[in-house]
Amino acid sequence: MDWNTQPAISNDAIGSPSSGAADGRALQRLLDELGRLPGIGPKSAQRIAYHLLNADSDEARRLATAILDVKSQVHFCPTCFNYATRERCDICEDPSRDTTSICVVSEPRDVSAIERTGSYHGLYHVLGGVISPMAKIGPDQLHVRELLARLADEEVGEVIIATNPDVEGEATATYLARTIKPLGVNVTRLASGLPVGGDLEYADEVTLGRAIDDRRAM
Amino acid sequence: MDWNTQPAISNDAIGSPSSGAADGRALQRLLDELGRLPGIGPKSAQRIAYHLLNADSDEARRLATAILDVKSQVHFCPTCFNYATRERCDICEDPSRDTTSICVVSEPRDVSAIERTGSYHGLYHVLGGVISPMAKIGPDQLHVRELLARLADEEVGEVIIATNPDVEGEATATYLARTIKPLGVNVTRLASGLPVGGDLEYADEVTLGRAIDDRRAM
Repeated sequence: MDWNTQPAISNDAIGSPSSGAADGRALQRLLDELGRLPGIGPKSAQRIAYHLLNADSDEARRLATAILDVKSQVHFCPTCFNYATRERCDICEDPSRDTTSICVVSEPRDVSAIERTGSYHGLYHVLGGVISPMAKIGPDQLHVRELLARLADEEVGEVIIATNPDVEGEATATYLARTIKPLGVNVTRLASGLPVGGDLEYADEVTLGRAIDDRRAM
Repeated sequence: MDWNTQPAISNDAIGSPSSGAADGRALQRLLDELGRLPGIGPKSAQRIAYHLLNADSDEARRLATAILDVKSQVHFCPTCFNYATRERCDICEDPSRDTTSICVVSEPRDVSAIERTGSYHGLYHVLGGVISPMAKIGPDQLHVRELLARLADEEVGEVIIATNPDVEGEATATYLARTIKPLGVNVTRLASGLPVGGDLEYADEVTLGRAIDDRRAM
């Protein structure tokens, strides 16, 4: 993350032979590295490797550059701990966002998921994980203190807790609700229930039970 | 493919910021480039990008290096036109291969597919495509002349034609058989029929018809 402190090299240099290890294993090394990526099995890795071999050098170079750039230029937003490429993240910098509402999520990818819905126009706070006694992660290992500082400083009327509806996500939500409510801030939680377009017959019993408990007036 | 002629740079330099374009679009550029790869949709691209953001810098650097190396170090084998990282490809260089048999395939990835079976121990010849009048690809656009030269020079007793069992692959196979047979070389074709573990009920009628035509004595 601190490659920026190294002397910059020209764009052309990125295309030069890099490891220099022309040991006849270049293709195998690429297959190995691709195979480490999530969702990429040996067959996908081979398909991608052959695609890159067939592609013009510019495309391969652009991909390699993009991978390096993302590591050197992307950091955590000091306010909400989402990924940021400028000083603060795009959402914190956006003057059109509703600053009276903070949506608390576990990971930066959850911000993307909620943004895709287009249903939310407030700010975010990324915890960087969930409370998990098994993994020895407590509130101190998460960005909880920073969230409380924001609630003290900013004019926030509602905190929406959007951790995953699993055991650890629920535990984290319960802890946060107990901590935040005394500050006089509204705390809400994402609704659980049947997925839209889903089928009663195939819903698991816990989800269906929750949908009955949380039924709404029509 | 000729980056080797450029002056080498140290391994460290590859980790430096490269494009220098810190325009706040590094993450989006990575998503765009990943999305160009075969089989990678927007969701997979995001998953991989977040994985790389979370991964340590070394892993991202190794992937970028592997991509660049594969473009700079991999070329076509001058004998069989498979991908090679040394002067000739691993198979042509392997003294334990049966040099009396050449398996003719369309693309380098077909070599990998046949190698995975472990059923073949001869040499290969990669055509670099199939005959396709629509795409204006005739025998002259493929490595057919080089195949005929190998048959004249080397002691080849059998040519196995392993182009795909589709219209263009069959046309290519027919053309090659007609051209090679007069040289006094045995020409065979991969068997068509039911996939092993398949189900008669779900086989398409052409495949099932071929399986009946090519039935074997028990």
